[in-house]
Amino acid sequence: MSDIKIHCNEEKGQKFIKDIEQKQFLFSFVISYTETCEIPGITVAGANTDFIKFTPAADAEFLHYGSCKSIDMIPMTPDGKPTPALLTKAALESASIPQVIINAGSKISPKLPYFQTDITPGKNIAIEPGLEQSNVMHAIDCGRILGRTLASCTDCLIIGESIPAGTTTALAVLKGLGVDAHVSSSMPKNPQSLKNGVVEKALKRSDSKEPYDVIANVGDPMIPFVAGMLSTASEITNVILAGGTQMAAVLAIAKSTGYDENRVAIGTTSYIIDDKDANLLDMVKSISDIPVLSINPKLKNSKFDGLRAYSKGFVKEGVGAGGSMIASILKTGIDSKKLLELIDKEYSRVTTSQ
Amino acid sequence: MSDIKIHCNEEKGQKFIKDIEQKQFLFSFVISYTETCEIPGITVAGANTDFIKFTPAADAEFLHYGSCKSIDMIPMTPDGKPTPALLTKAALESASIPQVIINAGSKISPKLPYFQTDITPGKNIAIEPGLEQSNVMHAIDCGRILGRTLASCTDCLIIGESIPAGTTTALAVLKGLGVDAHVSSSMPKNPQSLKNGVVEKALKRSDSKEPYDVIANVGDPMIPFVAGMLSTASEITNVILAGGTQMAAVLAIAKSTGYDENRVAIGTTSYIIDDKDANLLDMVKSISDIPVLSINPKLKNSKFDGLRAYSKGFVKEGVGAGGSMIASILKTGIDSKKLLELIDKEYSRVTTSQ
Repeated sequence: MSDIKIHCNEEKGQKFIKDIEQKQFLFSFVISYTETCEIPGITVAGANTDFIKFTPAADAEFLHYGSCKSIDMIPMTPDGKPTPALLTKAALESASIPQVIINAGSKISPKLPYFQTDITPGKNIAIEPGLEQSNVMHAIDCGRILGRTLASCTDCLIIGESIPAGTTTALAVLKGLGVDAHVSSSMPKNPQSLKNGVVEKALKRSDSKEPYDVIANVGDPMIPFVAGMLSTASEITNVILAGGTQMAAVLAIAKSTGYDENRVAIGTTSYIIDDKDANLLDMVKSISDIPVLSINPKLKNSKFDGLRAYSKGFVKEGVGAGGSMIASILKTGIDSKKLLELIDKEYSRVTTSQ
Repeated sequence: MSDIKIHCNEEKGQKFIKDIEQKQFLFSFVISYTETCEIPGITVAGANTDFIKFTPAADAEFLHYGSCKSIDMIPMTPDGKPTPALLTKAALESASIPQVIINAGSKISPKLPYFQTDITPGKNIAIEPGLEQSNVMHAIDCGRILGRTLASCTDCLIIGESIPAGTTTALAVLKGLGVDAHVSSSMPKNPQSLKNGVVEKALKRSDSKEPYDVIANVGDPMIPFVAGMLSTASEITNVILAGGTQMAAVLAIAKSTGYDENRVAIGTTSYIIDDKDANLLDMVKSISDIPVLSINPKLKNSKFDGLRAYSKGFVKEGVGAGGSMIASILKTGIDSKKLLELIDKEYSRVTTSQ
């Protein structure tokens, strides 16, 4: 277990780990969309701007099929930095963890069976409110329903997400709620001034500090949906919020939906914890008394440039990669070295078969 | 356990029961559609013909909310015979069994989160082939994916269905495959000559005895989808095919998709077993060596006419009612008398709140 570090509430973290070790896990992958990602330069998700909206569905297809159906390739930058779905897939397969896809506002539906929710994609918060108030409530309600259902089927529900530009809307929500927030980026040069400009513009539209008003004005559909999931799921079972700074925004909103602090942990990669531009741990401490677990996938030791790039600040996290690797280790006792072998093997398979 | 009767392979039935007693169950509710139900007089599902297509979605909503959203009332005949979803709901709630809805070709989507598959609704087999060949394969593929996922989350996967006129397409598929088939009806006067006329007409279009050809010509989307589910799910866990004669058609097709005979049972009501117009047990014996479990819900002792009608040949089964009641008994040790109290209570709630 030395591969997993516990941050924030150490004692709760140890208890959480003990409760789920060698137990059954279920991975739920929430795909969503905010038109905020159409602002040039704001995200690296998607090989080019035309493809951004396909990325969440393509990630879902990749997790399941090992290849994509909505686009011809797997989500990867032109120079070979792969989607974090590659890490997630290797981790879930290593531990035979089943997965379900949830469409919570993605513009593109994945070409495999998925949970449909009829949540509307989010708007560009630089221009207009991200969500209608009714869509916020609908997202929370749907989250509550699926959180209850999925939690009833497992000892530990992992919730991962894919929403391009999701760190920008998360930043806006956190700031709107008065949290001293600095979020990570999928790029080593975090486009902070661009993000902050968008956030400032968006927050100017409203003075309300009411959480649901803040979400409607500057949020995206993933945040209220996952907050809803967390509220019901944590009443029933253990929950890993698998992600970085975006999950801090979920936690902040989940204060309003309610949830059991004793059955939730954030699970993420060390690249998020080590990100000097962000302050995940401080944010979590200021919002809630829950543990944060992190895993160092040691991608700097990978055979491949595209994966080593993660250790140089690219991508860092996403598609629940950190939480999935933590779950794999806790379920099977595998270590991060062996996990890296599987990740390298998967990268090799993917780049050879393209 | 004396409330549950074992038919066909007694020994396998006892082992099956032993394997799932006091274990975790998951109910999956497959909703679908065939335009065959638009033939006047062929089904009682739906209070009137305009509403038939809403019935599967309304059943799904009722299971979850206890009321319907797509229509203003719960599916019930004008004189108060309720949808079998009422029995299913009481049974699942009594045992805290979680449920997921799967849209496998329903014309109407339920107003709650559900698995989307993009399977096309079936055509009227009296007029044209029920499914395109590609839709048959797509249904099987989707079934395989969801069967694998859901089976990984439970000790026993219950599969129920709602597809108006599904007994007619089931009859056609069974006859097309050379099974000596007599199917049940949701009406006490089984419109056999009408059904047989439709089936005869449909079967005349093709001489092929190839299972996938037969399904395409005279089947509905539910049958190949559930056959696909069964094939992967039974590799992983125990499966209750919760239904009557339609599940015989699923079994017949599942011979082609493959499945583990040692981990599947049909679970149904005694009204199906006692139906003199049908021959479920003989059909099952001729197709496969699996047990059939039945439960007598003793609705003749109900306080309400609408429920007593079940014991007089109305409705009989549907929405996985029989399998759900069996699961409730096996999970919790409740008896059928107590279950009837809960069913009566639910009927009272529903009819009072209308």
